[in-house]
Amino acid sequence: MRTLQVALAERSYDIHIGAGLLSTFPLADKVRGNQVMVVTNETIAPLYLEAVTSRLSHLQCDTLVLPDGEKFKTLETLERIFDALMARGHSRTTTLIALGGGVVGDMVGFAAACYQRGVDFIQVPTTLLAQVDSSVGGKTAVNHPRGKNMIGAFHQPSLVLIDTDVLDTLPERELAAGLAEVVKYGLIRDPAFYAWLETRSAKLLSRDREALSEAIYRSCLNKAEVVADDETEQGNRALLNLGHTFGHAIETATGYSEWLHGEAVATGMLMAVHLSAELGWVESDLIGRLRDQLHAWKLPTAVPSSMTPARFMELMALDKKVQNGRLRLVLLRALGEAVVTADYDPQALQRTLEAFCER
Amino acid sequence: MRTLQVALAERSYDIHIGAGLLSTFPLADKVRGNQVMVVTNETIAPLYLEAVTSRLSHLQCDTLVLPDGEKFKTLETLERIFDALMARGHSRTTTLIALGGGVVGDMVGFAAACYQRGVDFIQVPTTLLAQVDSSVGGKTAVNHPRGKNMIGAFHQPSLVLIDTDVLDTLPERELAAGLAEVVKYGLIRDPAFYAWLETRSAKLLSRDREALSEAIYRSCLNKAEVVADDETEQGNRALLNLGHTFGHAIETATGYSEWLHGEAVATGMLMAVHLSAELGWVESDLIGRLRDQLHAWKLPTAVPSSMTPARFMELMALDKKVQNGRLRLVLLRALGEAVVTADYDPQALQRTLEAFCER
Repeated sequence: MRTLQVALAERSYDIHIGAGLLSTFPLADKVRGNQVMVVTNETIAPLYLEAVTSRLSHLQCDTLVLPDGEKFKTLETLERIFDALMARGHSRTTTLIALGGGVVGDMVGFAAACYQRGVDFIQVPTTLLAQVDSSVGGKTAVNHPRGKNMIGAFHQPSLVLIDTDVLDTLPERELAAGLAEVVKYGLIRDPAFYAWLETRSAKLLSRDREALSEAIYRSCLNKAEVVADDETEQGNRALLNLGHTFGHAIETATGYSEWLHGEAVATGMLMAVHLSAELGWVESDLIGRLRDQLHAWKLPTAVPSSMTPARFMELMALDKKVQNGRLRLVLLRALGEAVVTADYDPQALQRTLEAFCER
Repeated sequence: MRTLQVALAERSYDIHIGAGLLSTFPLADKVRGNQVMVVTNETIAPLYLEAVTSRLSHLQCDTLVLPDGEKFKTLETLERIFDALMARGHSRTTTLIALGGGVVGDMVGFAAACYQRGVDFIQVPTTLLAQVDSSVGGKTAVNHPRGKNMIGAFHQPSLVLIDTDVLDTLPERELAAGLAEVVKYGLIRDPAFYAWLETRSAKLLSRDREALSEAIYRSCLNKAEVVADDETEQGNRALLNLGHTFGHAIETATGYSEWLHGEAVATGMLMAVHLSAELGWVESDLIGRLRDQLHAWKLPTAVPSSMTPARFMELMALDKKVQNGRLRLVLLRALGEAVVTADYDPQALQRTLEAFCER
């Protein structure tokens, strides 16, 4: 087991990474009160719910199984979590346990942020994407029909427990979606990691244990550093959103159902790199390098045929990074050096949108 | 104009109290971005909405008018606020303005806490209760069908603007409900204020300007001190909930429609004082003194005829102050000295419940 800390003073917490932790980690020791509710989804419940609840049987341990999918990441589903907590009499000293991917983690985290104005929660991420990104850092949210993650809170978990064995049951498409967020850390702040990843594309996709474990550790290390430096995204934390503004537009346009979040981020990152090259900030060969990497993982590199530059602009105008009407984007000044800026040539943005929307 | 500060480091903010502030205070100077949304209700809109929006016309100033009443303090109404913000393209630099009583303030504050993970909001309370209590301190929430204020957040306003002139249009029943929260400060921490109030019952109910203004100032001063000392209710802030556990049970049992919050708190405080006397912690003459005070303001001092001791216990078991199955109550050790404790004789509680439920 390897352990990292997210250093946030009295909100600091550990990330434990290791094979088989679901069965071996003393989870109950990390629960403050005598009530827990494990929230998961229909896909994960038959695989891992019993492993988690069996370690908590001396507590009041309730479970809630939600439908699986980004389209259920809504206020309505959130209400189901509140209903279950109220029906079972959970108090302010309860602990919620999010067992699942990013959707479960974001939603349960937000429920924990709001229930009785804030209760403890533990992240037990079961997808690669959740393990390397969404389970760490306390961003919680549900989607609004007009925009992704628009309703949410910053609420840090008290623990992140990453069992690398659960990736054995992860569909390849979801594994690849997680790798998109892994490569993101290389692009924005860790060029050595980017180079390391380029030589391990095949190993990672074939779930080589050592390579995957190292990729998760290195990703969490990068994420923990960024979050410790800027918990509530007043500054550099926004750099983690490389590709996300384009990606969220794709997700919103396709109703959160066709594209996985990591797939949209993959294409979105390629668009951000393309725009950075259009602006003359990075060598244009980086576009090809990233496209090759994404192709190796069978990730999409083209936008949906329904998208137009105008539709992109319309959807991106609702992005959370808009300030006083100006769209800020995360772009690369160099490989490993990201900036968030509204100071770019809008015509270059137009050229990138046209390049991706024409076919 | 008198000004108080709620001292919370980088979340500090001012409370301005004065006659006519809605028309004279430079509200726009306190707005950070170029977008505002004023949220109010159907009762207040025709009276004061124009006064507020007319001072903001150089900004993108949107308005949203909600139905009036505690029964609309729900996740569904919250969603209407989010819908309006999204439809009008409000960004993370927007400011919400809550123009109304405690229901509007709590709900708009919670919307501000969650919209894009947190935006600015300004409290412009239009009821006495909101002016002396709910608009100050950053507690925001909506109700759950099974319990009041169960879904919420701590999110401080950037300003509280109290125009004492708006009390001219407040129905007497709501004025009295506000006075219940005023007398609370005397009971829990300010015995001199309690004595001052006892000699001004009639003046306050007849809206004597000087007496009301002083009562508001003194209440906000008490509230600001408590909040600055314990923002997220880890300790002494809970003392502000004197009478609220009993009161919330009454409100929940009556569907948030028959009783005003302040009315339920009035009866609840009397029950808390009764229990404190049963425990031998305060002189039993305080029961009579408080009952006289509440009667002078035509506030209820008896529980609904549908309530039984068993029903009280069932509803109170869901209180947010429950810890690991033990019901903590705010009680008085002396006039002006409140404690929150689970260390009381349960039979004394039973006797108080029986005393109030028999008729």
